[in-house]
Amino acid sequence: MARTLTILGATGSVGRSTLEVVLAHPHEFRVVSVVGGQDAQALANVARLVGAQFAALADERGGAELKVALSGSGIESGAGPSAILESVEREAEIVLAAISGTAGLGPTAAALKPGRTLALANKESLVCAGAAFMSEARRLGVRIMPVDSEHNALDQALAAGRNGDVEKAIITATGGPFRTWTREQIARATPAEAAAHPVWSMGSKINIDSATLMNKGLELIEAHHLFDLEAERLDVVVHPEAIFHGLVQWRDGALTAGLALPDMKVPIANALRHHERLRMDLPRLDLAAIGRLTFENADEARFPCLALARAALRAGGAMPTILNAANEIAVAAFMGTEIGFYAIPETVERVCSTFAGRSLPAPATVSDALILDREARDTARRFLSA
Amino acid sequence: MARTLTILGATGSVGRSTLEVVLAHPHEFRVVSVVGGQDAQALANVARLVGAQFAALADERGGAELKVALSGSGIESGAGPSAILESVEREAEIVLAAISGTAGLGPTAAALKPGRTLALANKESLVCAGAAFMSEARRLGVRIMPVDSEHNALDQALAAGRNGDVEKAIITATGGPFRTWTREQIARATPAEAAAHPVWSMGSKINIDSATLMNKGLELIEAHHLFDLEAERLDVVVHPEAIFHGLVQWRDGALTAGLALPDMKVPIANALRHHERLRMDLPRLDLAAIGRLTFENADEARFPCLALARAALRAGGAMPTILNAANEIAVAAFMGTEIGFYAIPETVERVCSTFAGRSLPAPATVSDALILDREARDTARRFLSA
Repeated sequence: MARTLTILGATGSVGRSTLEVVLAHPHEFRVVSVVGGQDAQALANVARLVGAQFAALADERGGAELKVALSGSGIESGAGPSAILESVEREAEIVLAAISGTAGLGPTAAALKPGRTLALANKESLVCAGAAFMSEARRLGVRIMPVDSEHNALDQALAAGRNGDVEKAIITATGGPFRTWTREQIARATPAEAAAHPVWSMGSKINIDSATLMNKGLELIEAHHLFDLEAERLDVVVHPEAIFHGLVQWRDGALTAGLALPDMKVPIANALRHHERLRMDLPRLDLAAIGRLTFENADEARFPCLALARAALRAGGAMPTILNAANEIAVAAFMGTEIGFYAIPETVERVCSTFAGRSLPAPATVSDALILDREARDTARRFLSA
Repeated sequence: MARTLTILGATGSVGRSTLEVVLAHPHEFRVVSVVGGQDAQALANVARLVGAQFAALADERGGAELKVALSGSGIESGAGPSAILESVEREAEIVLAAISGTAGLGPTAAALKPGRTLALANKESLVCAGAAFMSEARRLGVRIMPVDSEHNALDQALAAGRNGDVEKAIITATGGPFRTWTREQIARATPAEAAAHPVWSMGSKINIDSATLMNKGLELIEAHHLFDLEAERLDVVVHPEAIFHGLVQWRDGALTAGLALPDMKVPIANALRHHERLRMDLPRLDLAAIGRLTFENADEARFPCLALARAALRAGGAMPTILNAANEIAVAAFMGTEIGFYAIPETVERVCSTFAGRSLPAPATVSDALILDREARDTARRFLSA
């Protein structure tokens, strides 16, 4: 029995890995809609490849090109916000939400429909609007399956017990390209150096977040919402080999862990599972061949973004939303060589401090979160241009 | 709500660790009966410590001493087989079965009662009579909770999916005291050298089994019965730090693992859990402090007992019963310096070969298993004295 699937962000990195999983299991999935960003041709190719019924492009200007590219295929298409909305409104048992950035928040939230499974790769849904998003998902009975390797591993490790028995959930970090650099070396790092991720190939913004360890901080915030665990029960350990992805320390002293060779198809396949797991034809982890796994503490002195994210998580309320928005602006400024590496945490800290006095509650709706997100971005931009 | 508990093997290594767990949770457990071997005084002390209702000593000759030692305590006592039987017949929600060796098989099987939880530490119940034992447990609706660190870890790791999705369940071995020795060095090993286990403090027979890796082979046989996994889905990896205890490789490429610092109280507490896990005041695993975990393949050329156990598991039928019996006799002969280290696998192989032609089915009852066990022991003794 094929299950119906809609893929938001079908032409991106997670989307392409998802296509590989889906194409390897033609009897398991029937793709209803595919959503892309700007590349009409790439989206048309994807839509044809999986035999989708509908293709939606975010960029309205590409609508005509998409239609031409799909002519004769019988696949309907559209472009712009209304087309994206149509794609999530169409009946689908599973939606894989992999539009990256704040742009993915609206469509991902719109994809929350009663009884649906949401395979969630859009981080901002949790980081920027976590409380609102999760409360809506609970209200509608949406099953959230995390696609991030760390959260997917935690999800599996957490199967061994109850929330109340969890002492700590730990996600691993590769440590990024600057793991062994001194603070002085890191201070002079260029965007190209920061974007060179040692294990995962991802978009460049997220690679910078990996270099600052903000990415791990944001993942702690995600884990908080996904698994209902407070800041005190969440931690990070540096593990350069990226074989362990998440560990759960239980109150009886036992731990369970989720491991895999670093390949996004593994957590994607896991997130798309129904009762049974999908059989994936991928290399298997051979611990004896690898020989050793190493671990070290995360150094918050060299990587202050991790400490800032933890502080935002502890502070709660709107602080994670503000942190995330400020970080996006600061990272963009770093990538544009307007500011140095450590100006990223400095900017984030300054924006967070500015808002701290207002003790803002967590945004009650996704729209509220987006309004606050814009305000925090404006504040960050103002600081950077001053 | 305290749950009633009976401890078989209360004065042994696992029994003493169990007492620590129980005494740390006075409101969780009410100890009904305690069973010991020969040491009447030790058993009386244990019975008084936990406020048991009944104490049974296996050695009939110690009955009078036990009675004297318990006088004034209000604790009833008995000695010999009938007293042990009484201890398992008394109402108890959980029985922790930690009498070691074949001597534990009868009492452990007798402890199978409808609706009970059996926290199982007696290996022979599974190695010598696995099919009969598990079928009886299933028939009576007995929940088996493995106490061995490896099987307890697998039990937790297996919570993340279904049996059909398991590609491989892997137990770890420290590699024993001869992990880095050459075959020539191992051939000259003394019982004292073989008994020096690098991580766990256990009885001496089991330490010899750790040195030959027969222990891991027997654990594969146990895992086969506990988790309904064939020989092809079971494997061993050498991991000297003994932090990983069991791993499950799923068919989607993900793995889950059970980890803990090596302390028997962790799997015991886990095996005794009800809905919630027990809170244990033990050191927590700190991966960053440990720094690295290492893995290597088990070398069946230097440790042929592992290959023999795997072969017995693949052969099925009565072969594991025969392997286990032959190994006990050979290990005893090695400990008595009658034979050299490699005469252990040679003896086991010879006994197994002798029985192989008969293609005996798996013993249908525990009594049948014990009859075959005696026959195989006799054969082994005959070979050794020839």
